[in-house]
Amino acid sequence: MTEEIYDVVVLGGGAGGVPAAVRAAQLGGRVAIIERRELGGLCMNRACIPFGQMSVASDILGRLSLGREMGLAFKDVSNNYSTLLNRQNELLKFMRMGIMSILKKNGVIIIEGQGRIAEKGKVSVSGKTVAFKKLILATGTTWAKPDFPGGDLEEVMNCDDLLKSERPPERILLSGKRPWIFQIAQCLQRFGSQVILVTEDKRILSEESKTVASRLSKVLKDEGIVIKTRSEVLDVAKKNDGLHVKLKTRDDPETVIVDRLLSGERQASLKDLGLENINLDDKEAYLKVNDRMETGAPGVYAIGDLTGPQSRHYSHLASEGGIIAAENAMGHEAALNPRTFTRVVFTQPQVACAGLTRKEAVEAGYEVVVGSAPLSMNPFGMILAENEGIVEVVADKSYGEILGVHMIGTAASEMIGQALMAIQLEATLDDLASVSFPHPTLSESLAEAAREALGRPIYIP
Amino acid sequence: MTEEIYDVVVLGGGAGGVPAAVRAAQLGGRVAIIERRELGGLCMNRACIPFGQMSVASDILGRLSLGREMGLAFKDVSNNYSTLLNRQNELLKFMRMGIMSILKKNGVIIIEGQGRIAEKGKVSVSGKTVAFKKLILATGTTWAKPDFPGGDLEEVMNCDDLLKSERPPERILLSGKRPWIFQIAQCLQRFGSQVILVTEDKRILSEESKTVASRLSKVLKDEGIVIKTRSEVLDVAKKNDGLHVKLKTRDDPETVIVDRLLSGERQASLKDLGLENINLDDKEAYLKVNDRMETGAPGVYAIGDLTGPQSRHYSHLASEGGIIAAENAMGHEAALNPRTFTRVVFTQPQVACAGLTRKEAVEAGYEVVVGSAPLSMNPFGMILAENEGIVEVVADKSYGEILGVHMIGTAASEMIGQALMAIQLEATLDDLASVSFPHPTLSESLAEAAREALGRPIYIP
Repeated sequence: MTEEIYDVVVLGGGAGGVPAAVRAAQLGGRVAIIERRELGGLCMNRACIPFGQMSVASDILGRLSLGREMGLAFKDVSNNYSTLLNRQNELLKFMRMGIMSILKKNGVIIIEGQGRIAEKGKVSVSGKTVAFKKLILATGTTWAKPDFPGGDLEEVMNCDDLLKSERPPERILLSGKRPWIFQIAQCLQRFGSQVILVTEDKRILSEESKTVASRLSKVLKDEGIVIKTRSEVLDVAKKNDGLHVKLKTRDDPETVIVDRLLSGERQASLKDLGLENINLDDKEAYLKVNDRMETGAPGVYAIGDLTGPQSRHYSHLASEGGIIAAENAMGHEAALNPRTFTRVVFTQPQVACAGLTRKEAVEAGYEVVVGSAPLSMNPFGMILAENEGIVEVVADKSYGEILGVHMIGTAASEMIGQALMAIQLEATLDDLASVSFPHPTLSESLAEAAREALGRPIYIP
Repeated sequence: MTEEIYDVVVLGGGAGGVPAAVRAAQLGGRVAIIERRELGGLCMNRACIPFGQMSVASDILGRLSLGREMGLAFKDVSNNYSTLLNRQNELLKFMRMGIMSILKKNGVIIIEGQGRIAEKGKVSVSGKTVAFKKLILATGTTWAKPDFPGGDLEEVMNCDDLLKSERPPERILLSGKRPWIFQIAQCLQRFGSQVILVTEDKRILSEESKTVASRLSKVLKDEGIVIKTRSEVLDVAKKNDGLHVKLKTRDDPETVIVDRLLSGERQASLKDLGLENINLDDKEAYLKVNDRMETGAPGVYAIGDLTGPQSRHYSHLASEGGIIAAENAMGHEAALNPRTFTRVVFTQPQVACAGLTRKEAVEAGYEVVVGSAPLSMNPFGMILAENEGIVEVVADKSYGEILGVHMIGTAASEMIGQALMAIQLEATLDDLASVSFPHPTLSESLAEAAREALGRPIYIP
């Protein structure tokens, strides 16, 4: 009996692995996907979807004050956290069925269990061996248990624990670099928690546009969230009145008292993959890949959170990488465009940034021009009271090529696609300036920001 | 003393006239704008902005039921219509100041009064004569007072009357072809009115994608709005129990009893423009222009609602036309792309359609392929319970050129810009299929609809 050799084996059935498997199968490959927990991975089961739903609930609560300005009255607003979590579980059940269904429809073989590279061309799963021509590694991340003293206390949680809580904690300290920390903070604060956000950096979203980051910071602080920058947890101790968290700050150490500490740090799941069996290094923070998603081992690709620092841990980047890896694995040519990667924060207002910041563009040697349009000058923005909203367009001065777009505002996550198209299709400021966006929308400010960069804004007084 | 001759005179200071004047001035022209009422025109003062605010209030009310599913509770929800109208008036005051400010900043001369073409190269305003090299007509529309018996009753209103009402009527019948009739209907219904919508056509949005239109119809009916298609008001009579409105229907005439009838019909303001003095016809329903916005009279341009049927009365089309007219008037070359005109309905969910429908594309001789992605299969759509949402992409089969995009869903008005960019930049289905939209967003369905058209959807089970 000859052993079956799969054209493509995908290790990990999450946001990156599933589209990788489907795409490889669509291109005619015999494909297997190996998953040790639930299909859908972290994104669907324990991140994007649960926290996405939380954000929607949080947005609805946040909109009430605008409603009141418009003459609406809501008395006795209350929330039932367990109903929120029950609805989430119903959604997830349905979504997992959907994933199962698309894998089967495309003829992908699903193998349950923990996969490990046994040797070149072979993965072992639950004692069996699965042979492959090409392998796509998509195992994502695992929680980085904090190493400060007290890090093993029950009150020190990760995001999974939060999703199993019966109610939001009264006082909570959040630390971590993953972008969804902000949406969790805002949601918990609106659900009644007192939230403290801690970051080692000198400002939140330290790699992003300063304009956008400082506006988000103002929004969060105005809602009562305490933000401690240049701070780091030194140790945690449980006392009668709560969890005493000692913080290293710029000046003297400071102690804050909370009920829970949520540490969102995660690290690439490189251990136990058997990387050493194909001469790949599992000691680095993450696996290095090129723009075709190729690792250093021939025929082995890696995608998603495995392949970058936490600031790049976004499931859409994993999905895009998955499709690119699958196409290359099946003999096509595909490459990732680093300029069309969106960093998004699902707060209210939302943050969405794609391409280069002004700083990055200057460092890359461009002669840079930046145009911006505040949403407080946009008619629909005025209706929505988008006081902190803004759209920033970064472009190359000589040719007008759009290099980056940075925005904060309602629906920024749905608007940023306009920037992605512009960057992907190599559009210029002139192109963007002449898009006839419908009125009244916030998107109009994208054209206005481009006109501002060209020195001819129409609606900015 | 030599008489001053303006390079460009703009007749009408609304959504089209203001950007036309600003753009002409930016290109070095000596420009005057003539307005007989408030700057900002119908759009700002009596349509897009007031009804835009109403829609936002209506959306907030509409979101409460989703909030309840998520465990939020709101007791005693009530509304105060006059607070809504007061906020609107405050907004408008501020916006009018903004318009005044941008006109002045750009050096545009503002002339108050009713302008009328006196002879070739001359407009008369309040007894004075203003000379021009180029003229841009932007006078918009006026209400078409209904001609059925009873049309002059006080209870037969136009939109201006509605904006002056102290409270929404208990029972109201809405008729008219202007697209904002749907957002007014939904808002009034949610503010407590019983709404009946009447249309002569066999379905609402009769020129748009049938899929999208039927989904909007279902949403409105599910909220309790009565929709009467193939119907027409025959006459209206005031009786003790209300306004008796006799409707012509497909079968026997039918009488409905309401408190108010709102007729939204408007017609191009061609009369009293003095068109006969430059040999233009004022007997037609609207002024014909080419894609450079030129009328039949040399040096005379026309834009906006003056130039098309009610289904094209959108202020963003007026603004785009205004900029194009100004550029041509100042000696540049610009033309309107008919494929990037968005028809938008600010209901909840919103409707946004750009480019050709399948029917129009077939009639235009294309071999057509259509891809669609229901938002009920989109992860964020599931969270938002977007049961009626869908994205439809119409493309040319041989080259994959995007010909039209049609959508219904939350934030469709902010997403459609992605389609506008695709059409403007002549993108293909392959381009659209590979946009890395952020997750979780509704926009992801735009890429999925393109993949569906290509026969390779990833997430549609």
